[in-house]
Amino acid sequence: MGFVVDLNCDMGESYGAYVMGNDEAILETITSANIACGFHAGDPTTMRRTVRMALEKSVGIGVHPGLPDLAGFGRREMAITAEEAFDLVVYQIGALSAFVKAEGGRLQHVKPHGALYNMAAVNGSLAGAIAEAVYKVDPELILFGLAGSELVRAGERNGLKTAHEVFADRTYQADGTLTSRREPNPLITDHEVAIRQIVRMVKEGKVRATDGTDITIKADTICIHGDGKTAVEFAKVIPGALREEGIEVRKIGDFL
Amino acid sequence: MGFVVDLNCDMGESYGAYVMGNDEAILETITSANIACGFHAGDPTTMRRTVRMALEKSVGIGVHPGLPDLAGFGRREMAITAEEAFDLVVYQIGALSAFVKAEGGRLQHVKPHGALYNMAAVNGSLAGAIAEAVYKVDPELILFGLAGSELVRAGERNGLKTAHEVFADRTYQADGTLTSRREPNPLITDHEVAIRQIVRMVKEGKVRATDGTDITIKADTICIHGDGKTAVEFAKVIPGALREEGIEVRKIGDFL
Amino acid sequence: MGFVVDLNCDMGESYGAYVMGNDEAILETITSANIACGFHAGDPTTMRRTVRMALEKSVGIGVHPGLPDLAGFGRREMAITAEEAFDLVVYQIGALSAFVKAEGGRLQHVKPHGALYNMAAVNGSLAGAIAEAVYKVDPELILFGLAGSELVRAGERNGLKTAHEVFADRTYQADGTLTSRREPNPLITDHEVAIRQIVRMVKEGKVRATDGTDITIKADTICIHGDGKTAVEFAKVIPGALREEGIEVRKIGDFL
Amino acid sequence: MGFVVDLNCDMGESYGAYVMGNDEAILETITSANIACGFHAGDPTTMRRTVRMALEKSVGIGVHPGLPDLAGFGRREMAITAEEAFDLVVYQIGALSAFVKAEGGRLQHVKPHGALYNMAAVNGSLAGAIAEAVYKVDPELILFGLAGSELVRAGERNGLKTAHEVFADRTYQADGTLTSRREPNPLITDHEVAIRQIVRMVKEGKVRATDGTDITIKADTICIHGDGKTAVEFAKVIPGALREEGIEVRKIGDFL
Repeated sequence: MGFVVDLNCDMGESYGAYVMGNDEAILETITSANIACGFHAGDPTTMRRTVRMALEKSVGIGVHPGLPDLAGFGRREMAITAEEAFDLVVYQIGALSAFVKAEGGRLQHVKPHGALYNMAAVNGSLAGAIAEAVYKVDPELILFGLAGSELVRAGERNGLKTAHEVFADRTYQADGTLTSRREPNPLITDHEVAIRQIVRMVKEGKVRATDGTDITIKADTICIHGDGKTAVEFAKVIPGALREEGIEVRKIGDFL
Repeated sequence: MGFVVDLNCDMGESYGAYVMGNDEAILETITSANIACGFHAGDPTTMRRTVRMALEKSVGIGVHPGLPDLAGFGRREMAITAEEAFDLVVYQIGALSAFVKAEGGRLQHVKPHGALYNMAAVNGSLAGAIAEAVYKVDPELILFGLAGSELVRAGERNGLKTAHEVFADRTYQADGTLTSRREPNPLITDHEVAIRQIVRMVKEGKVRATDGTDITIKADTICIHGDGKTAVEFAKVIPGALREEGIEVRKIGDFL
Repeated sequence: MGFVVDLNCDMGESYGAYVMGNDEAILETITSANIACGFHAGDPTTMRRTVRMALEKSVGIGVHPGLPDLAGFGRREMAITAEEAFDLVVYQIGALSAFVKAEGGRLQHVKPHGALYNMAAVNGSLAGAIAEAVYKVDPELILFGLAGSELVRAGERNGLKTAHEVFADRTYQADGTLTSRREPNPLITDHEVAIRQIVRMVKEGKVRATDGTDITIKADTICIHGDGKTAVEFAKVIPGALREEGIEVRKIGDFL
Repeated sequence: MGFVVDLNCDMGESYGAYVMGNDEAILETITSANIACGFHAGDPTTMRRTVRMALEKSVGIGVHPGLPDLAGFGRREMAITAEEAFDLVVYQIGALSAFVKAEGGRLQHVKPHGALYNMAAVNGSLAGAIAEAVYKVDPELILFGLAGSELVRAGERNGLKTAHEVFADRTYQADGTLTSRREPNPLITDHEVAIRQIVRMVKEGKVRATDGTDITIKADTICIHGDGKTAVEFAKVIPGALREEGIEVRKIGDFL
């Protein structure tokens, strides 16, 4: 029995006249798309087009709810309450689901964006509110969270299928969190190093933290980024590189 | 066989710290609620609370999609394309439907708000886009439009059940449109006159236009307003006044 | 030589169709108005009208810059950088100053709003950025900050005149901060108790903290709130009550 | 005595994480920059950076006020009132002017953006409100408007210096208006044709309309676009090409 992993990327982050990312190219290679819903990025027309493209390419469709902060691209932490988190997740799941329904598809997963994702990784109350929101709208949805985080645990407690997410191009701290972008060396820019990190996470369940220690990690889905200079190029080589290592890349809904 | 009519009101128009309307009191008397979805008014938390209140009082729940113009309360016409109209209606139906699903209810209808409603009354292209959006997301939804308008016709063409809407407190032009708020005498402030107008519309299918001519009108649902000084008081007397005239007030989903 | 103090209130917080506060009535009694600038509240039309009313009543006009969070009324802390704080304060000072100029008046002060005010009270970096922003746009402006806070200190360091602000209707912690609204007893609802607290702050420079200890406090300006049920009523009695205690109420620009 | 003309371009249209235009490169060649103010595009940090760059390159700084429609990039007409137009222009002039003041510069001009520009070209009431707003905030500012438009006339009536603006890459109708982007052939993509058009407008005061007739036009300032594929390349050749024809390119504030 071989290894299998999902490959996801944030999508649909354009807004009106503002273009972001290389969605069409990236969709060729990933298996799950996290589609922005208009709070931190995205707009209704972009959502429809992105859903349509994802369906055409049989990519799993995920809701990518963010904080209501377009100016900050959802990356600035905000002191929202658990109730507000619940409500904005319900809202954004609904908004995307209507496009999926109109296009004849179905939703696969939910992955919070940016600061909401980071806060939910460590804040059990927010994590619980998000998991409950997902469950109440559709208990079949898979909840993506940082591997080993509060969000994944909250998903399990609420009866959801969950996916532990790892990052190809980010470094890890000894406590399993990602190195903040404000710290030194948060990013892995060498594609070979990035590939080796994810291969090891998938096959051995381990990753080397920045302090040199090995930590245990579960890797159900790998996040790649679609907006850097070499993003498309890197995205294209990943599935082949993983296959060479005996790791199959399939959409999470097909194997979880 | 008696007469029957639906009584609807805009709801859930508060936004964050800003309170608008008397939703709880108005919900006691109406049969269908048009709930704002965050574009012209409303926010996720207000939407959830309003949906919950409407379900508790067995009021029919409607989506009330508006233009993306919170500062203008959705009342300023905007030159949106038919594609943009389609997309913003899909989005807003989805957003509200998730709250309805999370609360265990189901949607009854869609009624565009303000300038979107007015533009769709006379612009066949926008009307068609809106009707198609509703149908694609849920063909069981009832589309509300100004009685005799392009929007109602577009709904019928698209295979939707439609409701011709009349206004208790607005005056009519000879062409069946409402007198603009910028013209003289757009409003009927005398409650008795308003009651007589709706009774006649329901029973005779006629209304006296501002130029004195009688025009033919179909009245499936009556719109009342919830935010004026005497709104609650007026709302309370309507069902009884209609009943005295042999007109039953029931939610549209039960009789259309 | 008698005592003198300024009396300020947040103003111009309506937004489009949403009305907040009792600005016209409150302006009769206060000496300085903090006018919202469209980020947490307020809109261009409301700003112009509020500036005009304040000028008619000879009330000192202040900029009330907030976080870009209309949905949260600027009350939710956001992880903005010092650079972002600088920029949003410059922007909002400019926006209001244009209305003041168009109406033939001049600005008196700047008081950050809500979460920005609270963060700047304890975060020296944000406080410094805000003070520098004020200085760079107009070094004659008076900077309002929580009495004894980092913001006041940053203002002094940057060469600004500063006003230590105290609250009539809020309780204090032993460290000089306000009791959070999420803790017990944050508010003083008894008007007589509130008056006694401010009289003592002005005349003795002391306030009793919630733990029973007396703390030293400087009171250049007193903040009252304009949107509670008894706000107008309370606002009306303050100047007289202070005068009876030998405290003159004048706008800060006239005596600082 | 030779010919002289100003060369302007829209600038500072990035928003948060969204990048638009090639401001730094375009600033090397133009003489006047129209800087977005956060309504249709731009944000406080982008405004500051753009102002700073423009000052470093001695480019004239202009306010570029737009409709409150970030999703539509200010290109969708909205039914705003003259009062709303006045207020949003005052607001946006103020916001930008504070950055200019903080950076030690001064404003040169105001040019409305997109749909606001187009509406003001033909709607005398909006044009008057905009001109009055500019005058009330700073009567020294130069008002840019479509050559021969209502906006230019309103500026003159209100006592402002005005600049008749022509477009290098747009075609003209026989009535002097630009060919709408929804019509055939709105754009001139051949750079040589574009250069010939502006040379003739500057030297002869004439332009050939799409119907083949010659119309009279005044060309004080030429608008170029900064965001197309060949925008930077085209921008770079214009000053030299004009100079060869005996037309000097200088900032409008230096010669009007």
